[in-house]
Amino acid sequence: MRYGVILAGGGGTRLWPASRRARPKPLLPLGVGGRSLLAATVARAARLGGVVIVTAADQADVVRAEVGDAADILIEPVGRNTAAAVGLAAVHLAARDPDAVLCVLPADHHVAREDELVAALSRALDIAQAETKLVSVGIVPTRAETGFGYLELGGARGDGVRAVRRFIEKPDAARAATMVASGEYLWNAGIFVAPAARFLADIRRHMPEHGRVLDAIGAAIAGGTADARAAELYPSLPSTSIDYGVLERTTDLLCVSGEFGWNDVGAWSALAEIVPPEDGAVRVGGPLVALGAKGTISVSDPGTLVAVIGLDDVVVVQSGDAVLVVPRARAQEVRDAVAAIERAGLGRYL
Amino acid sequence: MRYGVILAGGGGTRLWPASRRARPKPLLPLGVGGRSLLAATVARAARLGGVVIVTAADQADVVRAEVGDAADILIEPVGRNTAAAVGLAAVHLAARDPDAVLCVLPADHHVAREDELVAALSRALDIAQAETKLVSVGIVPTRAETGFGYLELGGARGDGVRAVRRFIEKPDAARAATMVASGEYLWNAGIFVAPAARFLADIRRHMPEHGRVLDAIGAAIAGGTADARAAELYPSLPSTSIDYGVLERTTDLLCVSGEFGWNDVGAWSALAEIVPPEDGAVRVGGPLVALGAKGTISVSDPGTLVAVIGLDDVVVVQSGDAVLVVPRARAQEVRDAVAAIERAGLGRYL
Repeated sequence: MRYGVILAGGGGTRLWPASRRARPKPLLPLGVGGRSLLAATVARAARLGGVVIVTAADQADVVRAEVGDAADILIEPVGRNTAAAVGLAAVHLAARDPDAVLCVLPADHHVAREDELVAALSRALDIAQAETKLVSVGIVPTRAETGFGYLELGGARGDGVRAVRRFIEKPDAARAATMVASGEYLWNAGIFVAPAARFLADIRRHMPEHGRVLDAIGAAIAGGTADARAAELYPSLPSTSIDYGVLERTTDLLCVSGEFGWNDVGAWSALAEIVPPEDGAVRVGGPLVALGAKGTISVSDPGTLVAVIGLDDVVVVQSGDAVLVVPRARAQEVRDAVAAIERAGLGRYL
Repeated sequence: MRYGVILAGGGGTRLWPASRRARPKPLLPLGVGGRSLLAATVARAARLGGVVIVTAADQADVVRAEVGDAADILIEPVGRNTAAAVGLAAVHLAARDPDAVLCVLPADHHVAREDELVAALSRALDIAQAETKLVSVGIVPTRAETGFGYLELGGARGDGVRAVRRFIEKPDAARAATMVASGEYLWNAGIFVAPAARFLADIRRHMPEHGRVLDAIGAAIAGGTADARAAELYPSLPSTSIDYGVLERTTDLLCVSGEFGWNDVGAWSALAEIVPPEDGAVRVGGPLVALGAKGTISVSDPGTLVAVIGLDDVVVVQSGDAVLVVPRARAQEVRDAVAAIERAGLGRYL
């Protein structure tokens, strides 16, 4: 059987104050149709087969409240990055179904053209299942973004499927421009497909410490003590991404690609790409009144009014007991503000 | 007996969203020591004698809740500007005590040096009582403000008391500079002292329509039907200020003066003059985190954090269900935003 495996573990601070420890980014209502990013991801994954969400213990309650019966939830005792999360899903799903094929999906991306993405994911699942391969679903870049990793394309097989030659970490602006212009690079969106057994085999090979822990957890599933084993063994695992730990070391990685209207909503400025503007302003939540102010991005609780006078291109975010004001061009600095808030002993607002 | 008569009728929109229809400006906690402007005014007035607050029916409940037993409250059926309000207080207090002397005080001014002001008010009360005069308490100007009216000084009596030659409406910048440099002008702060009987005599003389209505209300006091008469007659009164209706037409107006650390808190930018800065920022209410942002003025509900990144000299005000962002230099435009909010059908936020 096929499974969408949604990774909902990350913290993330760049969408503060809407995202908080108690309400991580996947729960923000930035999906198509006002759904949460997580709910939209679950709906897409359900079109592939079963849905499993992997999340850390401290976020399990809010995740469960958000998705209800629409997904099974696998709880990591602590977050240990994506290699462990994918491995945990693989070991559980392989125990349930030795032929399980997994489509790993981040929980916090916006996808405008869901049908296109689901078609690409299905294709990747077909290939992974038929050929026992790891298949990445990359995003055709639309700008010379320096904030993403890239996949460098290799040989074509004639059916549109390409090999991935290597991973490129976040490039500088000049290199990003060259790469994007060449048409031979995709954004790495963290979407990967493979049979559970293949994921596990590659983890055992490239990440033996992870392999041992996961096998111990897997051996405990039949006896019903897998959670106890995980609680015992998981904390000692290194925090390693599946990209770094496995995919970059795999020699036969394939990929399919598309644009999908994909957006990682990596900062408040990205809202202008995913929310249709009204009078040049972008608004989520309560009403906005802008007076001598162009290009406002306004996010507030549904009943809260935002008024901006005499400032162009500012982001104003009100959420619960916090208000953020920042120029659109400096939205990446929200994470610095979060660090400053922590330093000021105001961590209760995070 | 002496009475402080506090006029708490006005609406005022320049301190939106902290000030609302349901919480007018006098109730904002901008007085010395975090008291409301009204509570601070009541405390000053109590040092003069009795305290009476004149307010409109729709604000009586919040005013009563704010001051408790510290003041008597006279309720106008509808607001009709300051001539009617002063007249109503005078007719009621004259009925209570034919020798009552009134010190009329706006409810929404900040006074840093209260002892100085109380001393000047006492002096004005002494003169008004001894000489049956109208005495204004003017503010020695500290800048060439174009937003205020001025009192032009006349002859000196040798005891520091001056005559007022005339009232000057809001001057242009050049004239304001000349006036302030001359030392012969005071800001008109709307603080006036006179015996109740003198206020009433002048109202009868200069504002006969007001005189007739007030006398009819006065005649009904003994029978306990003054409120009913006021409800009947008050709405037809023209909306006229005591300045325009009486004081500008009085030929023997005197004045005493001082600085008093007086501030009319006419816009959010004025907060920088009345709240001690911390790291160059001014903060009322919840915490402020400023990152690459100088000169922030931040006002929020006590538990609400404000974070500002990369913008100098902005005002951020969060109050209940509304957030305002405006450059300090454009704080006067808040009233335009209030008008825009009304036009947008969002009057529930006002």
